Amino acid sequence: MPSNPSFVLRGIDDVVYEERAIPELGDHEVLVTVKKTGICGSDVHYLAHGRIGHFIVEKPMVLGHESAGIVHKVGSKVKSVKVGDRVAMEPGATCRTCEYCKSGRYELCEDIVFAATPPYDGTLARYYRLPADLAYPLPDNLSLEDGAMMEPLSVGVHSVYNLGGLRANQSIAIFGCGPVGLLCMAVAKALGASRIIAVDIVAPRLEFAKEYAATETYLPITRQEGETNPDYSKRNADNMKEKLGIADRGKNAIDLVIDASGAEVSIQTGFYIVKTGGTFVQVGMGKADVTVNLGILMTKELNYKGSFRYGPGDYPFAISLAASGKIDLKPLVTHRFKFDEAIVAFKATRTGKSEDGKGVIKAIINGPEDE
Amino acid sequence: MPSNPSFVLRGIDDVVYEERAIPELGDHEVLVTVKKTGICGSDVHYLAHGRIGHFIVEKPMVLGHESAGIVHKVGSKVKSVKVGDRVAMEPGATCRTCEYCKSGRYELCEDIVFAATPPYDGTLARYYRLPADLAYPLPDNLSLEDGAMMEPLSVGVHSVYNLGGLRANQSIAIFGCGPVGLLCMAVAKALGASRIIAVDIVAPRLEFAKEYAATETYLPITRQEGETNPDYSKRNADNMKEKLGIADRGKNAIDLVIDASGAEVSIQTGFYIVKTGGTFVQVGMGKADVTVNLGILMTKELNYKGSFRYGPGDYPFAISLAASGKIDLKPLVTHRFKFDEAIVAFKATRTGKSEDGKGVIKAIINGPEDE
Amino acid sequence: MPSNPSFVLRGIDDVVYEERAIPELGDHEVLVTVKKTGICGSDVHYLAHGRIGHFIVEKPMVLGHESAGIVHKVGSKVKSVKVGDRVAMEPGATCRTCEYCKSGRYELCEDIVFAATPPYDGTLARYYRLPADLAYPLPDNLSLEDGAMMEPLSVGVHSVYNLGGLRANQSIAIFGCGPVGLLCMAVAKALGASRIIAVDIVAPRLEFAKEYAATETYLPITRQEGETNPDYSKRNADNMKEKLGIADRGKNAIDLVIDASGAEVSIQTGFYIVKTGGTFVQVGMGKADVTVNLGILMTKELNYKGSFRYGPGDYPFAISLAASGKIDLKPLVTHRFKFDEAIVAFKATRTGKSEDGKGVIKAIINGPEDE
Amino acid sequence: MPSNPSFVLRGIDDVVYEERAIPELGDHEVLVTVKKTGICGSDVHYLAHGRIGHFIVEKPMVLGHESAGIVHKVGSKVKSVKVGDRVAMEPGATCRTCEYCKSGRYELCEDIVFAATPPYDGTLARYYRLPADLAYPLPDNLSLEDGAMMEPLSVGVHSVYNLGGLRANQSIAIFGCGPVGLLCMAVAKALGASRIIAVDIVAPRLEFAKEYAATETYLPITRQEGETNPDYSKRNADNMKEKLGIADRGKNAIDLVIDASGAEVSIQTGFYIVKTGGTFVQVGMGKADVTVNLGILMTKELNYKGSFRYGPGDYPFAISLAASGKIDLKPLVTHRFKFDEAIVAFKATRTGKSEDGKGVIKAIINGPEDE
Ligand SMILES: NC(=O)c1ccc[n+]([C@@H]2O[C@H](COP(=O)([O-])OP(=O)(O)OC[C@H]3O[C@@H](n4cnc5c(N)ncnc54)[C@H](O)[C@@H]3O)[C@@H](O)[C@H]2O)c1
Ligand SMILES: NC(=O)c1ccc[n+]([C@@H]2O[C@H](COP(=O)([O-])OP(=O)(O)OC[C@H]3O[C@@H](n4cnc5c(N)ncnc54)[C@H](O)[C@@H]3O)[C@@H](O)[C@H]2O)c1
Ligand SMILES: NC(=O)c1ccc[n+]([C@@H]2O[C@H](COP(=O)([O-])OP(=O)(O)OC[C@H]3O[C@@H](n4cnc5c(N)ncnc54)[C@H](O)[C@@H]3O)[C@@H](O)[C@H]2O)c1
Ligand SMILES: NC(=O)c1ccc[n+]([C@@H]2O[C@H](COP(=O)([O-])OP(=O)(O)OC[C@H]3O[C@@H](n4cnc5c(N)ncnc54)[C@H](O)[C@@H]3O)[C@@H](O)[C@H]2O)c1
Ligand SMILES: [Zn+2]
Ligand SMILES: [Zn+2]
Ligand SMILES: [Zn+2]
Ligand SMILES: [Zn+2]
Repeated sequence: MPSNPSFVLRGIDDVVYEERAIPELGDHEVLVTVKKTGICGSDVHYLAHGRIGHFIVEKPMVLGHESAGIVHKVGSKVKSVKVGDRVAMEPGATCRTCEYCKSGRYELCEDIVFAATPPYDGTLARYYRLPADLAYPLPDNLSLEDGAMMEPLSVGVHSVYNLGGLRANQSIAIFGCGPVGLLCMAVAKALGASRIIAVDIVAPRLEFAKEYAATETYLPITRQEGETNPDYSKRNADNMKEKLGIADRGKNAIDLVIDASGAEVSIQTGFYIVKTGGTFVQVGMGKADVTVNLGILMTKELNYKGSFRYGPGDYPFAISLAASGKIDLKPLVTHRFKFDEAIVAFKATRTGKSEDGKGVIKAIINGPEDE
Repeated sequence: MPSNPSFVLRGIDDVVYEERAIPELGDHEVLVTVKKTGICGSDVHYLAHGRIGHFIVEKPMVLGHESAGIVHKVGSKVKSVKVGDRVAMEPGATCRTCEYCKSGRYELCEDIVFAATPPYDGTLARYYRLPADLAYPLPDNLSLEDGAMMEPLSVGVHSVYNLGGLRANQSIAIFGCGPVGLLCMAVAKALGASRIIAVDIVAPRLEFAKEYAATETYLPITRQEGETNPDYSKRNADNMKEKLGIADRGKNAIDLVIDASGAEVSIQTGFYIVKTGGTFVQVGMGKADVTVNLGILMTKELNYKGSFRYGPGDYPFAISLAASGKIDLKPLVTHRFKFDEAIVAFKATRTGKSEDGKGVIKAIINGPEDE
Repeated sequence: MPSNPSFVLRGIDDVVYEERAIPELGDHEVLVTVKKTGICGSDVHYLAHGRIGHFIVEKPMVLGHESAGIVHKVGSKVKSVKVGDRVAMEPGATCRTCEYCKSGRYELCEDIVFAATPPYDGTLARYYRLPADLAYPLPDNLSLEDGAMMEPLSVGVHSVYNLGGLRANQSIAIFGCGPVGLLCMAVAKALGASRIIAVDIVAPRLEFAKEYAATETYLPITRQEGETNPDYSKRNADNMKEKLGIADRGKNAIDLVIDASGAEVSIQTGFYIVKTGGTFVQVGMGKADVTVNLGILMTKELNYKGSFRYGPGDYPFAISLAASGKIDLKPLVTHRFKFDEAIVAFKATRTGKSEDGKGVIKAIINGPEDE
Repeated sequence: MPSNPSFVLRGIDDVVYEERAIPELGDHEVLVTVKKTGICGSDVHYLAHGRIGHFIVEKPMVLGHESAGIVHKVGSKVKSVKVGDRVAMEPGATCRTCEYCKSGRYELCEDIVFAATPPYDGTLARYYRLPADLAYPLPDNLSLEDGAMMEPLSVGVHSVYNLGGLRANQSIAIFGCGPVGLLCMAVAKALGASRIIAVDIVAPRLEFAKEYAATETYLPITRQEGETNPDYSKRNADNMKEKLGIADRGKNAIDLVIDASGAEVSIQTGFYIVKTGGTFVQVGMGKADVTVNLGILMTKELNYKGSFRYGPGDYPFAISLAASGKIDLKPLVTHRFKFDEAIVAFKATRTGKSEDGKGVIKAIINGPEDE
């Protein structure tokens, strides 16, 4: 008898393996055998805090949402995929009838069923059910691990390509060199950016970024005692501009800034760094309230945009970038775990390194072995 | 012999009438006899503080930049206007060769010569010189006072129409019912907005707004002792949403929010008020650093845009709205002064009311009488 | 026992009333008792020719697609409407999973099920089934006839507002004063257009247009013997520009041209009429191949756009324009027929006038009387 | 004494070398010693026909407009370049005050002074005067020949990048493999297009295109006797779609079609080839009137755009693409001539090959040797 072992969060730091029912399929749905699942900061956050903002874990919830697998069963009307297909799984099923779903911004759908966002179960199980059109067949030259990476890559696509509108030979600065920041850089590189400036407070992350996709790196200066964030950020920006030869206008100006750190000082510094008339896309989530400089926003006529997950076309574009070789996802997968070891994977992601001391970029957990 | 009496700011609270040279004309320039000049908060700010941000009055400067007048003389190649034409005067002459000037965002030109922004002289004089294409002939049904009002009206056009992209039957909330906020409402009304919500902390301003262009008004709640701005703003927004029946999505959602108050709590409240996927345009300038809620910016995917003055097409569009009767500027001109009384006009604008106690919206100063 | 009488097209000029089965409802569908159905040129075309382009009537098909009615039954998961609600019925149900459906252009969905477009049945029946989100509740101040008019009005919204991007105080010329052209004018007026130029070869239609929404009208000149279409159109355009004071640039230029006639000479004339850098939206369908002037397209950098039906947001916006009083649909409904008289309604629409000689703009057929 | 030898067109097939006056410089102008000038189809057309459309050569006119050179003298206020700088010369000086110049579409300026477009002299002379901001300094890694190529490359940038909006991993089909078509392909490649389909009726041009930038090529089928253009084009398109696996939607659809042939059948074929909802940019100029299929325009909701020369940002972007190595212009320069041999260069361009039988893509004429 088939079973559906699942990795379930019951409360803060309280996870357990449970047998869950195998979901019934609607006509347009597919059941995927989950093979690879990346661990993301939000999974870890739910484990550590039981909530993110007003999303609160109130009943046991399966974790995981960055997944790829193999189609196990298809609903009666499914034509886009067939049993046996290797697929990347987009983890947000939307209502398809609201204003946002219809007008091309389904990421804003109020009724989205998003894996591992309470109260909805995630993908760290043997089987996961999703609408057929959210199961994207993987081209032969992409692995299932690549497939799992489509989720964070789509975050990069959404912010850099769609909201940021980056085009060839434009310049970009990205604050934060975690998986999301790195994937933003990968997208920028794939789009032919002329300058890709990586910023992080952790030197090895900068080295990794440089190796991976950045053209330049910047390590923020040290804060002086008693210095406020705005003061520090002004000083930091001045230093960064001088060191890297960044101007407010013209050839040395930065067309697009992405914050993928969530740090207030990154945002403040980014306001100074972005060009007059430029765009700043906020991807990182940190503390709720941050202080920004209105004078800059206005005199530069900045466009400061919030970025939330990914929308129509982001998954397909992410896949096409990887499939065409414009992005290589392999260097980012630093750790691999068996399904049984999920808790170890979480621990490594949480601390930023595995027991052997190796820094974690992305840890992938396999699906349950025997089916 | 013709002379050019001018109203000159020499230092903080130190103004004087001076005889200035009459400017020489280039081939494409015109000399306008200034007839009407509105007083704006920034003029008053220079008078009171000698600076706005990093614009510092370091040498005597003629004040005034909201003007209209009559063409007195034209350069050798001018064809667009002729001597005797009544014209609205756009007070920012740009370089026309930089990236911004060429690509349709001349308000961002680094080399802009803007009237009464240091170190450039303003329009409170008998004569003012400007490029011919910035002297817009006034249609017969518009007065010279209307012409002077084109300047603040263009601020409204730039923010509501161009950056805000407001279209018929959309809804808007505007924080601040000073001249700028009121003109934003006038533009919204002219564009056929379905709801125009006016917000101010001064009740009579709300009444004026309602009379003038708003469909609804809102008076912010009182702050509780010790309440932080973010906490207050959350509470204020909840109250406003309930009172006015404002939702985050759907028919009762607010498509566009404009801040024309510069107050931090307005901005914070506005983030809650604007619809998911909506736009927030920042027009008001207040303290340099303000605290905004990142969580809202991101989960609503807001577009938070700085608005600076006005750009290509804004003056012509402002004129067309007034000339077609879609906007009536007359109710806004509450006070009129002779050139000799400029200092009284400034005082009234600064205190918000004239000696007889009448509230000032816009005070207009005539040009010198005898020419 | 409930029955579903339907008005069915069997072949060219061969219509009959049939009893059809009452459709079964899916969870998210509603069954509407059809109360009012407008007759459209395409319905007449199917009756007269059995086809439109490659859409060929190969099996009996219920006619009608411009309808409004009362919700009779709702699927188990429907929340947006309830039994008894008066609704406008959007007649194209799309797949919701293709690239177009997801990215905000569902009118291009390959799998659209469009009423009275072969092989799909239309709305001229007692009952019609549609997805719940396509049944739009009518505000109290709109009648069921208004509701039926939302279909052609949405065509106008799609072309003038969405594709044409018309905004307040812009100018528009519309070729063709049939229902579609008139509704384009109504939208233009609602959006605050400064000039609305109506063009038709039938003088009474021009008079109607002037009365209804146009600010100016133009009756094309007579063709000279042997004159080619391009030659005629050039001459016609010259005459029109002179008569109406139309220029290629500046204040007297026409921002947007809509062809709602389908006539080659209208299109050719429109290319001359539209401003340099302007937009031309093609709504009218005539002969397959038309000759256009490339020189104009290029030196004016025109944007020549095909418009097909309506997409996301068009129905809601159409309803909001009518509900807010910005558009009055009543003058357009010139004829009303009982369900039994459908064939008379078609004849009147086909000949352009009823037996009493009165010109038809829009004929409405009631639903079957007894239920 | 300095002189200004110039290559002057006096009438059809009537050219002569004349000594012309050296232009006087305005404050913001520069005088450039012209070093390299490419010959373009329009130069040849004026030589052969004395006109292009309504541009008629009515008095002697210096030919040439694709040039680069060395700054010889600068006006008193010029700061952007200095004597000795190697510069690419943008040959259209605009008024900078009209609606188009200000709003970012200066290519539509009515008062543009465009080199070698009657009545304005061209660049085939020792010296040419232009506004300083249109003399773009060449990076060290670009040659003066590269500089001359910036003119046709900007045509490609304008149509593919700006009007066409092509982005990474999109697909494009380009009809016509002359210099303009090839440069469109080069731009597409630089932007990271996934498929670049080259179409030409001359097989060696296809080979060149494949070698240079195309990913696929297509040689149109032979026309059948008596076949009309629309019929032929339909058949041709069907064949092309089948051969290359082109679909109307999805992964195998073509996002953007460029016509750079000016042939009616290319345009007609392109309408079938471009994807549903796609964009078609018209660059090629052929006969004035062409027949297009309205049915396709409408049901696909095409965006058919005319492209005229180049606008703000196109020259800088062209230079950046070449300087960053994303485009190699060298393979396109197949022939080089001395200033004295200009007439031979024109002959070769006109016949498409030099006397030795070698096919011409771009012939470059040097400036006069001794200065
Ligand atoms: N918008 C969305 O839809 C979305 C989706 C996924 C993740 N996120 C957010 O994106 C952010 C990045 O995600 P991640 O998985 O890469 O996280 P991460 O924690 O691995 O990476 C964050 C990086 O920022 C660096 N950083 C911290 N402070 C900094 C500072 N002051 N200056 C520069 N760098 C600094 C850290 O050293 C770290 O390398 C997180 O805030 C996450 O919540 C947002
Ligand atoms: N962006 C630009 O280019 C531009 C141009 C002109 C003016 N401005 C700015 O626009 C703002 C408005 O200009 P104005 O001339 O109308 O100024 P104003 O001072 O006359 O009006 C400001 C209004 O905001 C109200 N207000 C203050 N705090 C408030 C709060 N917490 N909630 C709601 N309302 C509040 C005040 O009561 C007042 O009525 C100013 O900040 C000015 O500097 C910007
Ligand atoms: N794009 C779409 O989705 C869509 C939807 C509905 C209708 N349509 C098309 O829109 C067009 C208009 O529809 P309608 O119902 O109003 O049709 P209609 O036949 O009632 O109106 C067409 C009008 O054009 C006029 N006309 C004919 N030749 C003309 C000319 N040379 N110059 C000026 N006017 C001329 C006619 O006199 C008539 O008044 C039709 O072609 C129809 O097929 C398109
Ligand atoms: N829009 C503009 O601003 C602009 C600027 C420069 C050139 N142009 C135009 O662009 C076009 C191309 O310029 P060019 O210098 O490359 O010209 P060209 O004559 O060298 O190239 C045209 C190519 O089209 C090919 N061709 C002809 N008929 C064809 C068909 N039926 N199918 C496919 N290919 C066909 C020819 O064989 C030739 O290779 C010309 O029409 C020119 O006038 C436009
Ligand atoms: Zn939804
Ligand atoms: Zn400038
Ligand atoms: Zn679809
Ligand atoms: Zn111009």
